[in-house]
Amino acid sequence: MAILSEKVTGYLENASWIRRMFELGSQLKAQYGAENVYDFSLGNPDLPAPQAVVDGLKEIASQASEPFAFGYMPNGGFPWLREKLARHLSAEQNINLGADEVILTNGAAGAINSFLRAVVNPGEEVITIAPYFVEYGFYCENHGATLKPVPANPKDFMPDLAALESAITPATRAVLINTPNNPTGAIYSAQTLKALARLLENKSQEYGKPIWLISDEPYRFLAYDGQQPPSILPLYPYAVAISSLSKNMSLPGERIGYIAISPRLKEKAELMAGLTLTNRILGFVNPPVIGQQILARAIGSNVDIDIYANRRKAMAETLRDGGYEFVMPQGAFYFFPKAPGGDDVAFVKRLLEERILAVPGSGFGWPGHFRLAFCVNENVIRNAAPGFARAAAALA
Amino acid sequence: MAILSEKVTGYLENASWIRRMFELGSQLKAQYGAENVYDFSLGNPDLPAPQAVVDGLKEIASQASEPFAFGYMPNGGFPWLREKLARHLSAEQNINLGADEVILTNGAAGAINSFLRAVVNPGEEVITIAPYFVEYGFYCENHGATLKPVPANPKDFMPDLAALESAITPATRAVLINTPNNPTGAIYSAQTLKALARLLENKSQEYGKPIWLISDEPYRFLAYDGQQPPSILPLYPYAVAISSLSKNMSLPGERIGYIAISPRLKEKAELMAGLTLTNRILGFVNPPVIGQQILARAIGSNVDIDIYANRRKAMAETLRDGGYEFVMPQGAFYFFPKAPGGDDVAFVKRLLEERILAVPGSGFGWPGHFRLAFCVNENVIRNAAPGFARAAAALA
Repeated sequence: MAILSEKVTGYLENASWIRRMFELGSQLKAQYGAENVYDFSLGNPDLPAPQAVVDGLKEIASQASEPFAFGYMPNGGFPWLREKLARHLSAEQNINLGADEVILTNGAAGAINSFLRAVVNPGEEVITIAPYFVEYGFYCENHGATLKPVPANPKDFMPDLAALESAITPATRAVLINTPNNPTGAIYSAQTLKALARLLENKSQEYGKPIWLISDEPYRFLAYDGQQPPSILPLYPYAVAISSLSKNMSLPGERIGYIAISPRLKEKAELMAGLTLTNRILGFVNPPVIGQQILARAIGSNVDIDIYANRRKAMAETLRDGGYEFVMPQGAFYFFPKAPGGDDVAFVKRLLEERILAVPGSGFGWPGHFRLAFCVNENVIRNAAPGFARAAAALA
Repeated sequence: MAILSEKVTGYLENASWIRRMFELGSQLKAQYGAENVYDFSLGNPDLPAPQAVVDGLKEIASQASEPFAFGYMPNGGFPWLREKLARHLSAEQNINLGADEVILTNGAAGAINSFLRAVVNPGEEVITIAPYFVEYGFYCENHGATLKPVPANPKDFMPDLAALESAITPATRAVLINTPNNPTGAIYSAQTLKALARLLENKSQEYGKPIWLISDEPYRFLAYDGQQPPSILPLYPYAVAISSLSKNMSLPGERIGYIAISPRLKEKAELMAGLTLTNRILGFVNPPVIGQQILARAIGSNVDIDIYANRRKAMAETLRDGGYEFVMPQGAFYFFPKAPGGDDVAFVKRLLEERILAVPGSGFGWPGHFRLAFCVNENVIRNAAPGFARAAAALA
């Protein structure tokens, strides 16, 4: 008998490339030992959490025998923490935010789901820019919507505004962007974001319904060469910024994130009521209490981004020496080079022979390229260099 | 412009009674001081977490500066923890469970959502027994299914098997039970559960598709008078038990739960693959890492149930002295008495005049009764007695 739903059965037949590489990687590690495998497949930050997180958790532990230490709180998180987070984000996003413009969520993944559940009607479309994080498709389908990827400009992976404009229809409910971008490392410029906001403003008016601009930005803290990713919140009333503590505090397993909405939105109270409800009814109930208590104590602390900057340099040298074509990432911890020979799946398989794990671009809706996550020790990058060079030479 | 989806707009117009009482309660507390309000509205355990939780968290904090201390792990939780949990549940459920028969989730609410997402097709029905936890309806609608409540036997709140049998149709995908029960405190007997399993076995064969039996049992540890809630896992291949650490360890805010499936299920691997996927794609990603690390260290520890037993006694005396009609709860921390006068909403409003917070039975699909959560200090119960008596006398 068919024990799973038709949809989930279909999903399992098309398992994610990232997870597939994870499994192949586990096999290789079992065979050769973890230290002999160069694993660039997963964005699982290896840097320890900042000291403020460590100290904060010790303090939380010292208060753990109080009644309600781990009790329920409102579905949008502790009100006093929303207040504190709003103050922090006001500086970061260069706009004045209050506690009623910020809500806590179960990571950025939970945030996107809570948001989509609140605003999309079944049959509507969410546009994203390819290459894109494969989970976005599932998040849309969870709520009866469809993800519609629009290719980026292949030269620099910036949004192609003309292509976006022709993709928008009356069924469009949101445009979901990710900057700094996974997998390309692109950071969208202020000018691009302004033009995008203007486009959505016009289309919202034309169709008589808001088209939300959702910026998924967990890598905001990780911009190189002194860049400052611009904020979308001042640009458009229907703009929302989503982030998490997964990358900047190396806390991906604890699942804390948040949504900040534009203070220019008239229907603020309505949206916040909706998000509080969807946090609850999707089964998140509330963001994990210990993660919230950590955020309260460690807000504003980040891992040392110079370490990532050095790895980026090492990875760029490794790829350049190996003869790869790539756009230098401006942010995040990924490279997205062209696959020598053009077939990304074949090339990633060839890399496996060098005990190098990478993810085919096909897993991001962009065949012909592959993704390397450089949240690994610099030595791993340097030591993988000969393998990268051999694989490129073999297939070029 | 309508900024929320039609469904969520509708939900907000019919806000949950539990939450509404929570808000009214907050107002009363602001007006009279929290110590002058008798709050029986929320099942937020007030007992501190067991010592093993406190000690465990201290140990976790002492290791917090290790790389990957809070990293991603497989979507179903740490494999070694699934192993450990399986051993623990084998004893509890009186059946031999392995790591491939247990998966970690984001609380019991997350578990129910991950499970329903994995098995229901849009348009299918999930049967539950009224009175029932109002969130079940949302959990079904999240995945395109409909909740179909079947009234319990009003005498003792046990399932009415004849009514269940006539409610099952080819559209039925699951029967969701909750024992020990919220709001009634009923514990379903071994005989009842066997008969239910047999019924579902026959209906599954008749319709050529499995009808799952889901037992939501976070109150399993809290059974009075030496009772042992029987396990459904040995009874039926399509049986799953869902629970959490929210009540037994007073950890509701951290969102750790689990699903245990029957070892008699042939398609075990398929179901586990589905649940691992749905944990991921619903945006849970993984159960919170700190909660998992706590479970690893505190597994098997519970709050002191004698304290709840004493409160149950005090509450029973209070209600008896006030002239209320009620069935003595066998488990969990709720009473579900008849509302004097018959109108539960009117009666709960009358209780507010005594600064007593309760939830109308209407919020559980069962008008004419009301719910009292006795996870409060025994003094609160004793001190509320005159108010309970006055309200009953006024409306009887």
